[in-house]
Amino acid sequence: MLRNKLTAMGKGRLEAFSDGVIAIIITIMVLELKVPHGDSFKDLQPLLPVFLSYLLSFINIAIYWNNHHHMLHSISKINGAVLWANVHLLFWLSLFPFATAWMGENHFTTWPLVAYGAVSTGAGVAYYLLSQCLISVNGKDSALAKAFGKDRKGIISIILDLIGISLAFVTPWLSLAVYVLISAIWLVPDRRIEKTK
Amino acid sequence: MLRNKLTAMGKGRLEAFSDGVIAIIITIMVLELKVPHGDSFKDLQPLLPVFLSYLLSFINIAIYWNNHHHMLHSISKINGAVLWANVHLLFWLSLFPFATAWMGENHFTTWPLVAYGAVSTGAGVAYYLLSQCLISVNGKDSALAKAFGKDRKGIISIILDLIGISLAFVTPWLSLAVYVLISAIWLVPDRRIEKTK
Amino acid sequence: MLRNKLTAMGKGRLEAFSDGVIAIIITIMVLELKVPHGDSFKDLQPLLPVFLSYLLSFINIAIYWNNHHHMLHSISKINGAVLWANVHLLFWLSLFPFATAWMGENHFTTWPLVAYGAVSTGAGVAYYLLSQCLISVNGKDSALAKAFGKDRKGIISIILDLIGISLAFVTPWLSLAVYVLISAIWLVPDRRIEKTK
Amino acid sequence: MLRNKLTAMGKGRLEAFSDGVIAIIITIMVLELKVPHGDSFKDLQPLLPVFLSYLLSFINIAIYWNNHHHMLHSISKINGAVLWANVHLLFWLSLFPFATAWMGENHFTTWPLVAYGAVSTGAGVAYYLLSQCLISVNGKDSALAKAFGKDRKGIISIILDLIGISLAFVTPWLSLAVYVLISAIWLVPDRRIEKTK
Repeated sequence: MLRNKLTAMGKGRLEAFSDGVIAIIITIMVLELKVPHGDSFKDLQPLLPVFLSYLLSFINIAIYWNNHHHMLHSISKINGAVLWANVHLLFWLSLFPFATAWMGENHFTTWPLVAYGAVSTGAGVAYYLLSQCLISVNGKDSALAKAFGKDRKGIISIILDLIGISLAFVTPWLSLAVYVLISAIWLVPDRRIEKTK
Repeated sequence: MLRNKLTAMGKGRLEAFSDGVIAIIITIMVLELKVPHGDSFKDLQPLLPVFLSYLLSFINIAIYWNNHHHMLHSISKINGAVLWANVHLLFWLSLFPFATAWMGENHFTTWPLVAYGAVSTGAGVAYYLLSQCLISVNGKDSALAKAFGKDRKGIISIILDLIGISLAFVTPWLSLAVYVLISAIWLVPDRRIEKTK
Repeated sequence: MLRNKLTAMGKGRLEAFSDGVIAIIITIMVLELKVPHGDSFKDLQPLLPVFLSYLLSFINIAIYWNNHHHMLHSISKINGAVLWANVHLLFWLSLFPFATAWMGENHFTTWPLVAYGAVSTGAGVAYYLLSQCLISVNGKDSALAKAFGKDRKGIISIILDLIGISLAFVTPWLSLAVYVLISAIWLVPDRRIEKTK
Repeated sequence: MLRNKLTAMGKGRLEAFSDGVIAIIITIMVLELKVPHGDSFKDLQPLLPVFLSYLLSFINIAIYWNNHHHMLHSISKINGAVLWANVHLLFWLSLFPFATAWMGENHFTTWPLVAYGAVSTGAGVAYYLLSQCLISVNGKDSALAKAFGKDRKGIISIILDLIGISLAFVTPWLSLAVYVLISAIWLVPDRRIEKTK
């Protein structure tokens, strides 16, 4: 009984810390939208790619928060490995502001697109590892384990990220299209988990 | 019972994440108050419009936090659509620091005023959509639904924002006056919701 | 009963939002400790006044968090006026990073010291108003009301702030000494409230 | 009973504030990863030392959060001294972004390594003091007191930090190696506390 309470509290603080870090990541990205010196409409135009890049990343980080929310919602136990798998995910998410700004300021050219894909792949792998840690702690019969199954969606998006990185060397705008596609796939919250609740 | 508990927890985390993002937005705006190089009183004077712009936005963001607080206080259920309507609202709020700084640094000229009005309109529409999502989840007989009615206040402030944008092309200071008026209207917390609690 | 629960929740979110804003204020001040270009010990020396200014403000903001924590701990009811009195306090606290940086970068000269004192006075007055709001909501017989009494400590520190501002025009280092004295007075958490719990 | 509830709440808010500050510290460090002007792979290379420095500090701050989490998890009582010991720890942690950036931008030369070691030592001492405060409040028979014993791990890492600082004057890369070693030692969460729960 007491133990359960302690574990629940631990989970609460893990969520609170993750929420804090993700909230800061999603917000400081806007600092890259540098205020232009002029005050005409024309002065806003060079910001368009930076803005689009920001919009894409805002949606991506929100997707991670959303799914992180659903995933932790469906489990009851955490341990040290989960804490570190979570920190690992936060590390990759923390690189989004950098990749976003580099991509936006260079109008979606090859290497910035590669960097964005690499950060996105890292976050995808980290999210997958976190889900596996949570399943191993909460049991193969837990709601999460049943909901995740082989986590096709997670694996597909990692593969798409790798395709996006490859395309950056050939047709940059196609690479960007793949990244947008990944976001579109995830925009729907993880119904698998919602279903089993 | 368990389900209720899970839903309540979900709402708690939605509030916590929103509080985090809004707290960061309201605070990083102050970073645009760039420290002047000189140390005389005269060196502070060019900062006055930036400061006034900051003050207006601080009040606006605080109003949103306040009303967001009251609105979520009065409901008990959330779902995936609510999560995304909330993220949509946070996105518009996250653009306030940019619009605030651009407006302040250019001493309230036409296009910065238009940008500020556009961000404010976007946030107003997003708040309205969030309230409608919450009403549809919590039922037409919920306290929120009765309190909101046709949400005249929300619609009026969106209309005033559009008037403010139009005036920016004619008499910029009148446009600013309209934005100040909108804040004044909202400064009173949403008594409609408080009343029905 | 339900009402109590709702009120308690409201207080929780007020604390959470305040904690968020104060946590950000206390942390972003460190961004003014600009990384020097050289890598020798000598390159650190010009940062000393900025560092001392940061240290003073870190302690001041921590004092506010601490006393805010004790004050809200001792009450049970909040209302709309409390929410706004709290936002008002956060506004003044949000100006600390600016005043701190200006004072540190100019080595504690007259006007930056005046600005620091003005921000500190504003925060002191806002804290006093918040305490009065809380007392009026929670009753003259509440633990808070008894603990605060005439709030001599709060009023003394506001008077000291005004003395500090005046001294800035005569002997700047004495002005700084007064500001340090105010922090020393408050470093002890508000025992009045702790006592009555 | 009521008192317990109040104390528990106080602890909760202490955790929340610490989480907030630590979340901001760990995230704003990424702002030092300045976006390069060019868009080629070559433009990323100068960022490598800054990135490695960021990685080391991200791990260090995460270790502190993790152990802070475990330590507060295992106790039930706090008091004013704990609040201030905690603020003292947060102050040292807040200097990590500065030390990290200075070290990374100067490619791990002597004085930046000394500064990093000094900040790390300060944080280590502050963590030790916080643990002693918590033990003195919660009793020598508390789970925490038994788990900590003489806190050999904490003392060893402070000694290693001092060795690292000394080595910076002789063989800088060895100094860095010692800092990495300290992180490696702590990467395992504080099993002593987990064991006794």
